[in-house]
Amino acid sequence: MAGLFRAAAAAAWGQFPWRGYCSRGAQGKLSKDFVEALKAVVGCPHVSTAAAVLEQHGHDESMYRCCPPDAVVWPQNVEQVSQLAALCHREGVPIIPFGTGTGIEGGVCAVQGGVCINLTHMDRILELNTGDFSVVVEPGVTRKMLNTHLRDTGLWFPVDPGADASLCGMAATGASGTTTVRYGTMRENVLNLEVVLPDGQLLHTAGPGRHFRKSAAGYNLTGLFVGSEGTLGLITATTLRLHSVPEAIAAATCVFPSVQAAVDSTIHMLQAAVPVARIEFLDEITIDACNRYSNTNLTVAPTLFLEFHGSEQALGEQSQRAEEIVRCNGGSHFSWSKQQEQRSQLWAARHNALYAVLALRPGCKGCITDVCVPISRLPEILVQVKEDMKASGITGSVFGHVGDGNFHCILLVDPEDTEELCRIEAFVYQLGRRALALHGTCTGEHGIGLGKRRLLQEEVGPVGIETMRKLKATLDPRGLMNPGKVL
Amino acid sequence: MAGLFRAAAAAAWGQFPWRGYCSRGAQGKLSKDFVEALKAVVGCPHVSTAAAVLEQHGHDESMYRCCPPDAVVWPQNVEQVSQLAALCHREGVPIIPFGTGTGIEGGVCAVQGGVCINLTHMDRILELNTGDFSVVVEPGVTRKMLNTHLRDTGLWFPVDPGADASLCGMAATGASGTTTVRYGTMRENVLNLEVVLPDGQLLHTAGPGRHFRKSAAGYNLTGLFVGSEGTLGLITATTLRLHSVPEAIAAATCVFPSVQAAVDSTIHMLQAAVPVARIEFLDEITIDACNRYSNTNLTVAPTLFLEFHGSEQALGEQSQRAEEIVRCNGGSHFSWSKQQEQRSQLWAARHNALYAVLALRPGCKGCITDVCVPISRLPEILVQVKEDMKASGITGSVFGHVGDGNFHCILLVDPEDTEELCRIEAFVYQLGRRALALHGTCTGEHGIGLGKRRLLQEEVGPVGIETMRKLKATLDPRGLMNPGKVL
Repeated sequence: MAGLFRAAAAAAWGQFPWRGYCSRGAQGKLSKDFVEALKAVVGCPHVSTAAAVLEQHGHDESMYRCCPPDAVVWPQNVEQVSQLAALCHREGVPIIPFGTGTGIEGGVCAVQGGVCINLTHMDRILELNTGDFSVVVEPGVTRKMLNTHLRDTGLWFPVDPGADASLCGMAATGASGTTTVRYGTMRENVLNLEVVLPDGQLLHTAGPGRHFRKSAAGYNLTGLFVGSEGTLGLITATTLRLHSVPEAIAAATCVFPSVQAAVDSTIHMLQAAVPVARIEFLDEITIDACNRYSNTNLTVAPTLFLEFHGSEQALGEQSQRAEEIVRCNGGSHFSWSKQQEQRSQLWAARHNALYAVLALRPGCKGCITDVCVPISRLPEILVQVKEDMKASGITGSVFGHVGDGNFHCILLVDPEDTEELCRIEAFVYQLGRRALALHGTCTGEHGIGLGKRRLLQEEVGPVGIETMRKLKATLDPRGLMNPGKVL
Repeated sequence: MAGLFRAAAAAAWGQFPWRGYCSRGAQGKLSKDFVEALKAVVGCPHVSTAAAVLEQHGHDESMYRCCPPDAVVWPQNVEQVSQLAALCHREGVPIIPFGTGTGIEGGVCAVQGGVCINLTHMDRILELNTGDFSVVVEPGVTRKMLNTHLRDTGLWFPVDPGADASLCGMAATGASGTTTVRYGTMRENVLNLEVVLPDGQLLHTAGPGRHFRKSAAGYNLTGLFVGSEGTLGLITATTLRLHSVPEAIAAATCVFPSVQAAVDSTIHMLQAAVPVARIEFLDEITIDACNRYSNTNLTVAPTLFLEFHGSEQALGEQSQRAEEIVRCNGGSHFSWSKQQEQRSQLWAARHNALYAVLALRPGCKGCITDVCVPISRLPEILVQVKEDMKASGITGSVFGHVGDGNFHCILLVDPEDTEELCRIEAFVYQLGRRALALHGTCTGEHGIGLGKRRLLQEEVGPVGIETMRKLKATLDPRGLMNPGKVL
């Protein structure tokens, strides 16, 4: 995937800002002295300028072409991160924080070169406070690692973006996912951040060691750094809010005659305060792809996948209410189960959706994008999306977190077909504008990264962008933190 | 209450920063031309420089002595607010936003004089989107007004700080209250803000007209302005997240042999994911005061007041679980009810707590302060608080939102007794430091205002304060927005 856009880079790209990211010249612009200085901080084995390593760190899981950094370093502790930042600050060298590289908006592309700081060697769970429902983790800790660690505590961290991402990386991108409807996004679940500022100073956004549930003390620095995509500082530890493992879990699926009916059911469930923990929508293309991929026989129609968390007794009531609402909206095929194995079977299509859709056109890559609209506008935009895909001759599918109004498009593209790439690019931009026209946002959870900067301008308007620019200039006056992203 | 601290102002105040707030000279420093310019913007009847009006706008419900502004204006719409800000910006005149004046940290005291902008004439509910669970309100709309308006929609706005405050004011102070354990604070329930910046420019923190459930688009400006206490701009409209009215509500009370047992019960309920909607703690002093005040016969012991929201069926299960947990922790006298009237009776002590405590020493005023600690540290700090009160010879009681680790002290003080005021002052400061020592915050929901600025410094440390100062200087370079507050 890394080289995907290289072929296309020379082509005329239309208006979408996917071109010309590597604004610097050839690599290797770091002086030998500077590389030696990096080694002096982290130790010789923890610095690399090998082409393969640089290449590996120059892209995420998106379609953006690889922009390798000039060096990769692996600090072992926050003091080293601080020294690295101070060094880069002194010398005017860009810094790109790197976690698991599972982003999908090009957030780690080193568009101006510089030093990639791979934080995964810092992988300790620093502090677990079960009575306070909080934990402090370093950037190398992923959400699955954390939940494995929590296994016997009765607690878990529910934010689930799909990928097994670094929790600090999830804080940096303001990630969310399937459980937002019940547990919120990273914004609601980060209690404190340890941040190395661009000049190397150490900031604790809520004060050192603090892990209270709420505060009205001063400006919300935690909220400012969550979702800042590495452009304001390096997150070296995150304090997270934990939740109780539900006593029981039930899964359900059901199909609908139309997108409108599926969305109406969702709204009615939320209005009836049915406490769903996940409520996912898959369009008929995705279901059809799943049938082909897994040899199943699901009804090819707009489908909802639901999950309920609660006591044994509450689950029965919840699913009964959900079923009533589904039937009132013309839905059918309501199946549900509390058993782990059957739950997994019920949700298999959702879990395999990405791979199933990719299999529709072998040899193609999937371009994944997301937007979020007020939930009542979902039917409208989903109809538009289908028409836009048809009009653009794009094969793709739609699924997402219908309880939040957030959905994803997977667009299949032949990486060698420059003309198709252009159409995809235009479609993604059009999708963003459609979301904006419906009072939505150009990204519910993937972030702005490289490709949605112009959409962000349209979304927040000139005063909003100017305010963001001022904040960036204040906290990163030399513009060295992950340059070229967000703004 | 307004003149309360005036008498004490001349006294030696020790180290607590409650003295010398009116840093300007005599009132009336606004030129006649400037006042005429104000009138030209909002119309003659909407400007006042009458002493009684200035006095009324120079204090909130706290102990801080009145610092009247030099003029009060009542804009009728956002365009006028914008023009007023631009005018003050040009002339270097401080601006103090004013809502219902129900704050308790001196947030509206005009310590440098200037123009108080009373926003209560802007009292429209601009937009209600029931399908999207959102509403847009102007600053004159209070939470009770909103909930009355929502009565027939099946939706409500649950954040409940006690006072019938302006919702925009609640956004400005980052308010929360009894329902946070279930519905979150203002931080989690504000979706968008319309803000007039210090120079008069209009900012929509999430973009104009947007009311999506979540976003990963750019810096979280909404989060930055929530809780900024009027020091970064004037909030002229707030988009709020609404929630479904629960099908049924149940209330419960129970008493405990110790604070530890009450807190342990709370933690166990949260761990068991019993979905309590409110869980309030009252100490034995408060209960005793309630008995005297209302002629009731409640058991004088640490007490929990609980509220459950859910389906009829779920409520029974929830209260049963809660009762089991209470009994396991040595609690007793578990009473509960689903009937409105009985619920009100059960919770009467909680509702009357403030007045009951004030009645303990007739003629005295109540100094109310709050801190928030990790919930597991609550027993420790509550024991300390009791000892501190005793050692300081202070009469006071403790109650609060135990599910969040947030509690209030009401301290009774003779406003004419300078020495007692000094002791109260010292106690409040000590309380803040005790919370900080336990990884807590010096304020869970009241804000920093005037009196907790030094505690804020201790809480977030030098880099935190420096970062906040930079943000303030960036967004309000002339330092005109509610000067002397927060920083």
